Amino acid sequence: MSFSERLLSRATRSMGVSFIREMLKATKGVEGMISLAGGMPSPDSFPKDLLAGLFQEVVEREGADVLQYGASEGDAVLKAQILRHEGDTSVGPDEILITDGTTNAIYLFTRALIDPGDVVVCEAPSFSGSLVAIEACGAELAGVEMDEEGLVVERVRDVIRAKRADGRIVKFLYVIPEFQNPSGRTMSLSRRRDLIRTAREAEVLILEDQPYRDLRYYGRRLPSLWNLARDEFGDDRTVTICKSFSKILGPGLRLGFAAGPAPLITAMASWAQKVTVSPEGVAQRAVARFLERGYMAAHVERINGLYRAKRDAIIAALKESMPTGIRWTEPEGGLFIWVTCPPPIDTDILFTEAAKAGVAFIPGSKFYTAGTMRRDEMRLNFSYAGAPDLREGVARLACILRRT
Amino acid sequence: MSFSERLLSRATRSMGVSFIREMLKATKGVEGMISLAGGMPSPDSFPKDLLAGLFQEVVEREGADVLQYGASEGDAVLKAQILRHEGDTSVGPDEILITDGTTNAIYLFTRALIDPGDVVVCEAPSFSGSLVAIEACGAELAGVEMDEEGLVVERVRDVIRAKRADGRIVKFLYVIPEFQNPSGRTMSLSRRRDLIRTAREAEVLILEDQPYRDLRYYGRRLPSLWNLARDEFGDDRTVTICKSFSKILGPGLRLGFAAGPAPLITAMASWAQKVTVSPEGVAQRAVARFLERGYMAAHVERINGLYRAKRDAIIAALKESMPTGIRWTEPEGGLFIWVTCPPPIDTDILFTEAAKAGVAFIPGSKFYTAGTMRRDEMRLNFSYAGAPDLREGVARLACILRRT
Repeated sequence: MSFSERLLSRATRSMGVSFIREMLKATKGVEGMISLAGGMPSPDSFPKDLLAGLFQEVVEREGADVLQYGASEGDAVLKAQILRHEGDTSVGPDEILITDGTTNAIYLFTRALIDPGDVVVCEAPSFSGSLVAIEACGAELAGVEMDEEGLVVERVRDVIRAKRADGRIVKFLYVIPEFQNPSGRTMSLSRRRDLIRTAREAEVLILEDQPYRDLRYYGRRLPSLWNLARDEFGDDRTVTICKSFSKILGPGLRLGFAAGPAPLITAMASWAQKVTVSPEGVAQRAVARFLERGYMAAHVERINGLYRAKRDAIIAALKESMPTGIRWTEPEGGLFIWVTCPPPIDTDILFTEAAKAGVAFIPGSKFYTAGTMRRDEMRLNFSYAGAPDLREGVARLACILRRT
Repeated sequence: MSFSERLLSRATRSMGVSFIREMLKATKGVEGMISLAGGMPSPDSFPKDLLAGLFQEVVEREGADVLQYGASEGDAVLKAQILRHEGDTSVGPDEILITDGTTNAIYLFTRALIDPGDVVVCEAPSFSGSLVAIEACGAELAGVEMDEEGLVVERVRDVIRAKRADGRIVKFLYVIPEFQNPSGRTMSLSRRRDLIRTAREAEVLILEDQPYRDLRYYGRRLPSLWNLARDEFGDDRTVTICKSFSKILGPGLRLGFAAGPAPLITAMASWAQKVTVSPEGVAQRAVARFLERGYMAAHVERINGLYRAKRDAIIAALKESMPTGIRWTEPEGGLFIWVTCPPPIDTDILFTEAAKAGVAFIPGSKFYTAGTMRRDEMRLNFSYAGAPDLREGVARLACILRRT
């Protein structure tokens, strides 16, 4: 072991790597490979022309401000435009923080709360990018099973009880209630109410991750946990919501926000001061002007049309070519389809076969925490590839599944 | 204490706040106040027109790439342009990481190395913004005195020995060798060599913070610790250097970089993946194009002219109006002058007096770690205010000092 490796901290040495990242590397740039593996938005969804003009304008007209040091809490102009756009008139400027995307919000939230060994309850399966960020802060994850209605809240109560009996401190529940990554599932309204009730009774916090909320192609939008807690329970201390511009305007902008109880937002800003000082200034103001000029509604409608067609194409392809016994979710929005295979199929093994046949996906096992692992599932992304590739990719997969 | 406050982690509850930040708040926007307190570059230094054009061009022509997810290590195009610009042909792409400014580099470096209670040796005084970031990771800071040649290296050896005798692990030495913040001092060449020798013998790392290196108005540039270690000692494992575009192009861009041993850079990138995913994509590529087109040399020459005039103005004003007994550094570059007052002047008390008289500075005590505190010094910034304000601000200060 080299000199600098020997000096690395214990947390660094035990840190999880994102297997998704590794798998993406292994399949990226391979000739003829159709990737249904990543979670990247389509480049066709980026409002390039509008953003190009706004970036230029903002630097030219407001350069003295946006190129200067900015607040760790984020640009006040952007915060005001977000609150106006979201229609949240009850939220004070000290209850919202601009972050470098949602992962940054999750990191700052976890840093603000977790002492090593504290417990965070999450859905099983859940997004591994978030889970490794939460674990990097020293938290222990406790995964709880889901069904068609989302997280099984009764089991959440069991886990909190069991962890407490074990002398552990449960700090928060991490959930992705809409078009969940990876399962595509949406938490039902009654489950949402039950989850808030559970968190309030147990006096634990909820971190509601909502990166896909605006990407709804069918059906009606449900109130967020954040809205339900405030409107139905009169509770502004339990839920923190984070949203992202990554899936709507482009992940390269690294912009998202968290809204929650003022003491927590203050603590997150205090961490942000040490971690990044502030989010990038030009992108913040360009997005503020994008919202201010009212470009967002038409833009979201356009990209929802784009993604609706892709979602329909992949589901049609699955119906057409998958052998019997294979089941999949049909989400009303988001970026992912969750496929469950009958025994004895192991999707970790299938991954290698599929890569040889020119199609990549993420095996379900990569989304589970220790002790909750399953190997009969896989995540398919439909936002990045074009419709012909979606059809061909599914056909290649179906072909291997038939052979297995 | 509220519900969410009670759940905050111990690290959050014990976290240092930046007193500078608080002081800036207290004096900002006050009618007629002349601030020599902050560390902000002059808005006149921002290359607004060039950047405005590049931002637009990059989004328009390379939007599919720069608005998409990017590498946690940073944009490969920017890394290549930085290495070319720095003339570092020996550095591999796995030895450099783009960061969200220098504070982010310091945070990631510290996170990669520090287990709670590990020791970091720093200059006393040093930049409090860095110190709170290092402490937030659980490190204990050990400040070592400086003289006119910079850090007293012999005392560094004493501290390492004492900490080790005490069973502690010393992980790295944090230094700002050029135009140091706050003292304006530059570490001499012989001290640089001695520091590298000391670190190598003790097998501790060096984190070399170089945000002002390009802002030299007089005299000749010394080789960085990074260069010395590689060129004279044949050592590419001891020194990590971080530099920033904040003082050259604009801090709002949140862009800097760290170059160091590959295993450390890899560990920092692994943390970056959890903390921010990646730096902002548009700003990275715009700065890459700025470097590629060769705009940097003329730009740095222009801003050095701007700052040289400001530096000369404040030093002339100090000579003209300060009462005898007051001493100050005359740095060849950077943004700060360090003033030492004779007894019984206490600059913490003076701060309040000065604020009433319409001039703000940062008391020296804010730059010391526990146990090394001095109260007879102050930091004056000369990069932000215009020359007339610099003269008037110094005159107001001199007037109070005469009365004290």
